[in-house]
Amino acid sequence: MNNVLLLALAVATLLPLPGRAQQAEKLDQAMLDKIRDEGLNRSKVMETAFYLTDVSGPRLAGSAGLQRANEWTRQQLAAWGLQNASIEPWGTFGRGWDIEKSYVAMTAPYYHALLGAPKAWTPSTNGSVKKSVVVVKAAVEADLAQYQGKLRDKIVLTEVAMPPKLTFEPDARRYTDDELKKLAEAPAAAAAAPADAERLAARRAQAVLRAKMADFYLSEGAVAVLSSRAGSDGTFFTSNGAPYAPDAKPVLPEMEMAPEDLLRLTRLAEAGVPVEIELETRTRFQTQDLKGYNVVAEIPGTDRKLKSEIVMLGGHLDSWHAATGATDNAAGCAVMMEAVRILKVAGVQPRRTIRIALWGEEEQGLHGSKNYVKNHFGDPATMKMLPDHAKVAAYFNLDNGAGKIRGIYAQGNEAAVPIFTDWLKPFADLGATTVTLRNTGGTDHLSFDAVGLPGFQFIQDPLDYSTRTHHTNMDTYERLPANDLKQAAVVVAAFVYNAAMRDQKLPRKPLPAAKPQ
Amino acid sequence: MNNVLLLALAVATLLPLPGRAQQAEKLDQAMLDKIRDEGLNRSKVMETAFYLTDVSGPRLAGSAGLQRANEWTRQQLAAWGLQNASIEPWGTFGRGWDIEKSYVAMTAPYYHALLGAPKAWTPSTNGSVKKSVVVVKAAVEADLAQYQGKLRDKIVLTEVAMPPKLTFEPDARRYTDDELKKLAEAPAAAAAAPADAERLAARRAQAVLRAKMADFYLSEGAVAVLSSRAGSDGTFFTSNGAPYAPDAKPVLPEMEMAPEDLLRLTRLAEAGVPVEIELETRTRFQTQDLKGYNVVAEIPGTDRKLKSEIVMLGGHLDSWHAATGATDNAAGCAVMMEAVRILKVAGVQPRRTIRIALWGEEEQGLHGSKNYVKNHFGDPATMKMLPDHAKVAAYFNLDNGAGKIRGIYAQGNEAAVPIFTDWLKPFADLGATTVTLRNTGGTDHLSFDAVGLPGFQFIQDPLDYSTRTHHTNMDTYERLPANDLKQAAVVVAAFVYNAAMRDQKLPRKPLPAAKPQ
Repeated sequence: MNNVLLLALAVATLLPLPGRAQQAEKLDQAMLDKIRDEGLNRSKVMETAFYLTDVSGPRLAGSAGLQRANEWTRQQLAAWGLQNASIEPWGTFGRGWDIEKSYVAMTAPYYHALLGAPKAWTPSTNGSVKKSVVVVKAAVEADLAQYQGKLRDKIVLTEVAMPPKLTFEPDARRYTDDELKKLAEAPAAAAAAPADAERLAARRAQAVLRAKMADFYLSEGAVAVLSSRAGSDGTFFTSNGAPYAPDAKPVLPEMEMAPEDLLRLTRLAEAGVPVEIELETRTRFQTQDLKGYNVVAEIPGTDRKLKSEIVMLGGHLDSWHAATGATDNAAGCAVMMEAVRILKVAGVQPRRTIRIALWGEEEQGLHGSKNYVKNHFGDPATMKMLPDHAKVAAYFNLDNGAGKIRGIYAQGNEAAVPIFTDWLKPFADLGATTVTLRNTGGTDHLSFDAVGLPGFQFIQDPLDYSTRTHHTNMDTYERLPANDLKQAAVVVAAFVYNAAMRDQKLPRKPLPAAKPQ
Repeated sequence: MNNVLLLALAVATLLPLPGRAQQAEKLDQAMLDKIRDEGLNRSKVMETAFYLTDVSGPRLAGSAGLQRANEWTRQQLAAWGLQNASIEPWGTFGRGWDIEKSYVAMTAPYYHALLGAPKAWTPSTNGSVKKSVVVVKAAVEADLAQYQGKLRDKIVLTEVAMPPKLTFEPDARRYTDDELKKLAEAPAAAAAAPADAERLAARRAQAVLRAKMADFYLSEGAVAVLSSRAGSDGTFFTSNGAPYAPDAKPVLPEMEMAPEDLLRLTRLAEAGVPVEIELETRTRFQTQDLKGYNVVAEIPGTDRKLKSEIVMLGGHLDSWHAATGATDNAAGCAVMMEAVRILKVAGVQPRRTIRIALWGEEEQGLHGSKNYVKNHFGDPATMKMLPDHAKVAAYFNLDNGAGKIRGIYAQGNEAAVPIFTDWLKPFADLGATTVTLRNTGGTDHLSFDAVGLPGFQFIQDPLDYSTRTHHTNMDTYERLPANDLKQAAVVVAAFVYNAAMRDQKLPRKPLPAAKPQ
C-alpha cells in the first residue's frame, strides 16, 4: 500500500466517511496496544514452532508425530490457562503410518547416495534389496503392455513429471502494493472455479492411470517403484495420493525422489548402462486406533448472554511426512496458539467464548475440520443444522504458509468487508491492509463456509511457499521468518478479540444449498 | 549490449575505425560459418556432458570416477580423429578416494533420514554406528576446553557457518547490458586483490582452527563429526579442506550436512532432547597410484613453419564428490571437447597445432595445469623457461559454470584487447560482445599467466553457479542449459581457430618475476 492510501486510512479512523451506511466498528485500543506489545516484544511463537516442527517431527495423519503434537499442544494450551483443552476424536480416519528406515542409493555403475523418501502409506521393502531397473513410460494404460514380463524382480523408474529448470525468478516474494490493490478490487466471483474443475478432472484421470500402473507393477512382480513429481536443487514434492484406508489395496514400496536423481538413473538406463539400486524402506502401519483427532481449547466467554457463542480460530496440525511441515502448517498452528497465549497474557475477558482448534487430517481432504463442523454445527450434505450452528460468531484460519498477514479474504461476504476494513486499520503499519471479497480455497475455513458459517482465511505473503516448502522435503523450521509469524499472531489476536467483543456476531451469507455427497 | 552498440559493432566490421593503430584481424568467415552451423545445429555437447557427468560420476581427484572420465575422454577425442590422445601424468598428487556407502539418519527422538555426504578423504565409520550427540561451539581454540571428557563415543555436531535464509533474489541470473558495459570499461587493476588477501588470511586462520578441532575430537574419542558450511533447500556445499596426502594425519569420519538437518539436530540437543544418530560411511582409499593426470589430444598444425606452435584450450575434468560436477567443470570440458569436435567436422587445416587439455586435480589448487605448465613450458618459482615456452600462441580456459560466453577477460593484456574485440564481432548476435582488461582468478588459465603465457578465461553468464551448483551436492546434469553450452562451443572453436591461423602468436605481457614457493 502506498503512503497516500495509508494516510487516507489514518484519517478514516478519525472521521466518519460520508456515504458509508454502516457504523464504524468500536475498537478497544488499549487492549489492541497490549496485544501488539506482547506479540511483538515477548513473542513465544518461534518456541511454539520449534515444538511443533523439530520436537514433534513430521505429522502425517495418524502418525506418531501427529500424536506427539496433539499431546504437546493440548498440554501447552492448558499450561497457558486455556480451559477444556482436549484431543477430540472426529470419527474414523484410517491407518497411521511412520517411517522407520529410508535409504536409497545407486550401486552401479558407481556408488551414489540418492535423495528420496517413501511415499506415504507405502509398505516396507523386504529388507535391503539390490536390484536392476526398468524405465517405464506410459501416457495411457495401453502403453503398459510393452512392459509385460519385463518387470519381475526389477525396480521401476517412472517418468519425472516436471524436470527441474533454471530459475530466474526469486524463490520467495511478498505481495506488491499493486497486487494487493488488485486483490482489494477483485469481485468475489474472481476465484477461478471452472479452471479448478478442469484441473480436478485432469488430476482424477491421472490418479486413475497411476492406480492402474501401480496394479500392473505389483502383478508383474516388480520390487519397488521410484517416482518424482516436481522440485529442484534438493527440494522435492511429496505426493497427495495415499491409500490410508485400512482395507486399501496392496501397493509396492515406492520412493519419491529428487528429480535430479531419478533423471540421472533414467538417462543411464536409457543409454544402456546397467543401473543397480540399493533400497531399504521400513514403514510401520498403526491400525490400533483408526480415529482422527482435533485439539481444541477455550478461553471462556464472560458475558452472561454471549458466552454461549463462540469465536473460533485454527490451523491444521497434520503435515506431510518428508519434512516437519513448518509452513504447512506448523506456522498456522503456532500463530493461532500464540494468538490465544497473547490474549491470555493480555488478560482479556471476552464476551464470547474463544475456541482454538488445531485440525487433524487436513492434507487428506480437510477431514478434521469438516467432521468437526458436521459433529458440532451441521452437515453440508443435508443442510440439517445442529443448535450450535446459531452460536458461531466467526472462524479464522491461517494456512497459506509462513508469510505475514497482508489482509483477509472476505469469502464473498459483502457485509463483512467494512467490518474487516475497520479492524485492519490499526495494523496498516504492519503491512496488513487489504480486504478482498474474493474467496480462496484449499484450507479449513471451507468447512465452515460449506454450512453458511462465516469462515475466513487471511491473505499472507507468499514467500517461498509454492516453490520450496508446500508439501516438500524442505518444509523445515528454517523456513519460518520470526517477524512474519509475530505480526500474524498480533493481527489474529486482534481479530479474534474484536469478534468476541462485538455486539453482533459477524454477518453471514445466505445458507448454501445442500450438497449430497 | 544495447542495439545502438550492436549496430556500431556491425558497422565496425565493415569500416576501418579512425584513430585505431592496429590492423583489423583477418577472419575466415566461411570457416566461422561452418563452425557456427555445426555447433548450433548438430551439437553433441549434451551427449558429451552426459558421459562426463552421469556416466563417469563424481570425479574427485584420484577417484575411480576421474579415472573413468580420463579414459572415456581420451577414447572419445581419439574417436573424433584427434592425434596423440593420451592420459599424461603430471607428477605425484596423493591418495585416491571414493564413497562406497553413505547413510545418516536421526533415530531419536524420532526417525528421520538426513541429507549429507562424507567429507572428501575422510575415513569410514566402524560399520553402522548409533550414537548420541554433543554440540560443540568454538570460536577459538580455548573454547574447546569445556568439552574435555565429554566427547567419548559421541557424534560431534559443529556450528553451521551460514544458516539458510529466505531468498528474495533469483538463484540464476545473466549479466545485464549495464554489467557488461562496466566490465568492458574496468581497468585491469579492478580485480580486488587486497580483499582476496584478507579473505585468504581469514580462511587460513579458520583452517588452522578446524585442524585443531579435528585433532581434539579424535583425541577425545569422539566417533564422528557432522558439519555444514552453507546451502539451503536441499543444496549443500562441500568442503575445500581435505587431507589427500598419503601421510596425512588421521581424522574422524565426517559428514557434510544440509544446514537444515544439522540445525534441527542442534536445536533439539540444545533444548535437552536426547538425539541419537545412525551413521554409516564406507570410503575407499586408493594408494596404488598416487600420480595425477591430464588428458591431452591434438589437431596437428599443417603450416611448415607454424605447426610446432600450439594453441591450447582446456577445462578441468576433476570435480567435488557429492554430485557429478556438471557446471564445475564438466561443462567446460564438454564445451572444449565440442569445440575440437566442431573443428574436426569443419575440416580445419590449422596452421598451428591445436591442443586440448582436460586438467586433473584443479580443485586442490590447479595441480594438473600448474604441473603441466611446469613440465612443458616453465617454472614460475624460478622463471626458468623450457624451449616450448616460446611455442605457445594462446591458452583458452572455460571454468565459470555452464553459462554462455558473454566475452573474455584479457587478463591485463592490453595488446590482446583489440584482437579479441575483432574476434567477438561475428558473435554479437549470440550475446558474446565484451572484452575486459580485468583479470579473473580461480581457474587454470592462471597457471599459464604465471609464466607469462597468454592464458585467458571467458566471461560467462553466472546462472546459478554461486547459489546452487559450484561445489554443491546439486551440481548435476540438469544444471546444464544446452543452448548456453552450444553457444560457448561455437565461440571457443572460433577463438581457437583464429589463434591457430593468425600470422603472429597472441601478444604476451612482460614476463612476471619469479615467485619462489
